[in-house]
Amino acid sequence: MGRIVQKFGGTSVGSVERIKNAADRVLEEVNQGNQVVVVVSAMGKTTDHLVDMAREISPFPNKREMDMLLTTGEQITIALLSMELNERGFETISLTGWQAGVQTESVHGNARITNIETDRIEKALASGKIAVVAGFQGIAGADITTLGRGGSDTTAVALAAALHADKCDIYTDVTGVYTTDPRFVEGARKLKSVSYDEMLELANLGAGVLHPRAVEFAKNYQMPLEVRSSIERVLGTIIEEEVSMEQNLIVRGIAFEESITRISIFGLKKGISSIFTALAESHVNVDIIIQSMTQEHETSLSFSVKTEDVKEALEVLNSHKESILFETIETESNLAKVSIVGSGMVSNPGVAAEMFEVLSQREISIKMVSTSEIKVSTVVSQDKMLEAVNALHEAFNLSDAFAIK
Amino acid sequence: MGRIVQKFGGTSVGSVERIKNAADRVLEEVNQGNQVVVVVSAMGKTTDHLVDMAREISPFPNKREMDMLLTTGEQITIALLSMELNERGFETISLTGWQAGVQTESVHGNARITNIETDRIEKALASGKIAVVAGFQGIAGADITTLGRGGSDTTAVALAAALHADKCDIYTDVTGVYTTDPRFVEGARKLKSVSYDEMLELANLGAGVLHPRAVEFAKNYQMPLEVRSSIERVLGTIIEEEVSMEQNLIVRGIAFEESITRISIFGLKKGISSIFTALAESHVNVDIIIQSMTQEHETSLSFSVKTEDVKEALEVLNSHKESILFETIETESNLAKVSIVGSGMVSNPGVAAEMFEVLSQREISIKMVSTSEIKVSTVVSQDKMLEAVNALHEAFNLSDAFAIK
Repeated sequence: MGRIVQKFGGTSVGSVERIKNAADRVLEEVNQGNQVVVVVSAMGKTTDHLVDMAREISPFPNKREMDMLLTTGEQITIALLSMELNERGFETISLTGWQAGVQTESVHGNARITNIETDRIEKALASGKIAVVAGFQGIAGADITTLGRGGSDTTAVALAAALHADKCDIYTDVTGVYTTDPRFVEGARKLKSVSYDEMLELANLGAGVLHPRAVEFAKNYQMPLEVRSSIERVLGTIIEEEVSMEQNLIVRGIAFEESITRISIFGLKKGISSIFTALAESHVNVDIIIQSMTQEHETSLSFSVKTEDVKEALEVLNSHKESILFETIETESNLAKVSIVGSGMVSNPGVAAEMFEVLSQREISIKMVSTSEIKVSTVVSQDKMLEAVNALHEAFNLSDAFAIK
Repeated sequence: MGRIVQKFGGTSVGSVERIKNAADRVLEEVNQGNQVVVVVSAMGKTTDHLVDMAREISPFPNKREMDMLLTTGEQITIALLSMELNERGFETISLTGWQAGVQTESVHGNARITNIETDRIEKALASGKIAVVAGFQGIAGADITTLGRGGSDTTAVALAAALHADKCDIYTDVTGVYTTDPRFVEGARKLKSVSYDEMLELANLGAGVLHPRAVEFAKNYQMPLEVRSSIERVLGTIIEEEVSMEQNLIVRGIAFEESITRISIFGLKKGISSIFTALAESHVNVDIIIQSMTQEHETSLSFSVKTEDVKEALEVLNSHKESILFETIETESNLAKVSIVGSGMVSNPGVAAEMFEVLSQREISIKMVSTSEIKVSTVVSQDKMLEAVNALHEAFNLSDAFAIK
């Protein structure tokens, strides 16, 4: 007998029909003799509807009240899923965040979990019940809080860790984690497994199936995750520390992202740190940063931002003329970021070189480069993005046997 | 400075627009220096929508889960109303049933309030905040419960009693309690005040503005209530023990109800008590009961039920042939109940006689009669119902000066 935490996201419980389908997946595990804790998000459009009403009242609604409002979403789902399981003859207990003992910081809208009092869930499991828990929400003192983006993923992983579950299954609308986006690359293959770090890079780069915060939590507690389809009955992708079967696959995935702009500052006399402090204060996210020095000891600086943030970034730079001294600014838009990810790279220094070679053979010029131990990111022209992704996917043999179809 | 509990029902908070309107009414009291606790129901159609989803899953959903589901309705309203009050610069605290300390029996769907821990509300009021509380809901142990029909009214009155409020205002979509239904009787007048007992009779007889359970609660704690419009700024109707201004108005209101059927049992040999036990077990509500004896010492029994319950009632009677022995059953449908209500009747034994006289003058034959200290009910032919109501309204001078227009 194992102990499993299952998480169903918004689309996987988006209608009564979908909730019935989720119940099927819960009972498959229960009928195999497992103890099951189910964590659910709000039904598909519920959150949007609630947010719309709040916006009718205020552009910036009180955060405590926003938490009070939004947490009704998951509460509806736990009640309905629990009813459905009851209807099929299974005993359940539905639990809101506070009832499940999910304690958080005293912050509204984006609280971190500080502790989970598992007594009530343990008792329910011991008496043979299925625990159905509202994701995304917790309690601080006697106030309802929410965990922010990716909150339900985080609830699931945190509960799995606190309950010493054997695994945590993340049910979603894709069948797993792919070597790259299958909508754009024909040869894209579902990975049998990825490591936490690889998943973190893939998640941050926009693969989008699992929130990075939940992955970090899983890594800290060494909790194996499986990303799998809530509809199709196929194997998903396992996320764990040791990726056994595919160790020799150096590059495991290719992530890409459009609408990048490079901002270059020439003749920078002072204020490098001021630049990034000022941008951060204005919530402009800076990705790749490159600094270089000319022979005349002049500094030039390039960094990439999302194209939608360019206007804001330029305003920030121009409004700090006293602390940031420079000669000219240039921007280049219509760029894209293409990254190869794989923990095998650590011991293969030639991987980055191979990537550059592949791109240069196709005359795709590299505008910026950034590397980490398990990732190489390049910024290229946006109209070359998919060509680059396909070429790299082929060059690193990602359509091959190591990945499962 | 006073302390006021205000209650807004489903239609009074049925849209964001209506919630803004409710906020106006809250602030009118706050701006007069009052401490205010607001109790709200779920927004108009929310409960129906939730019930529909539950019914898609089960004809008889688990009651604990039903409470979990339905209580999201008021939680949405407290969040939105609280946001609106914040937006206008007022400090608030929204509280679910459990946060407001509303403790109930451990029963789902129809729990009674056992205690209210007012600490949190008292603290909020002391620090100048407006408390916005979810009606209809409470907590038993660590489980969410609901109070059943009229639950928000009950929450409001119970909170008013526990907080020693000066009054409890029930905002609704009518402007007060009327001498009779103004849709059917042109001369119907809004009453300035009624006693708890009169209101109980009027509420039970279908006046429908306030749940009898809440009225009983108010009576027990001698908490003055005012039923008033959430839209129109006019005086409402005060419900209190001593009705000062209108003491000399013997009959204060006329209630009526359609679709009544009389069931008569002749030649009853045994089983009178079995009849009513069996009917109660089948949830058939019996209203007026008349028993008579013939010269041959045969008992005959008549009672009135709602026409929709007749089939069930006859089945019950016929299926208990061993314990209930009788000769024949007759039913008469298309009847209606017309009642006069007023605490002045106690000391005026001629009131019932006057009522019968009025009806007999118009050749309206009385099928059944039932009296209490403050009420006389008659069952008449349904097609004579409105004629009877109008005649009685006129005969007892209910259009006159004692009632306010």
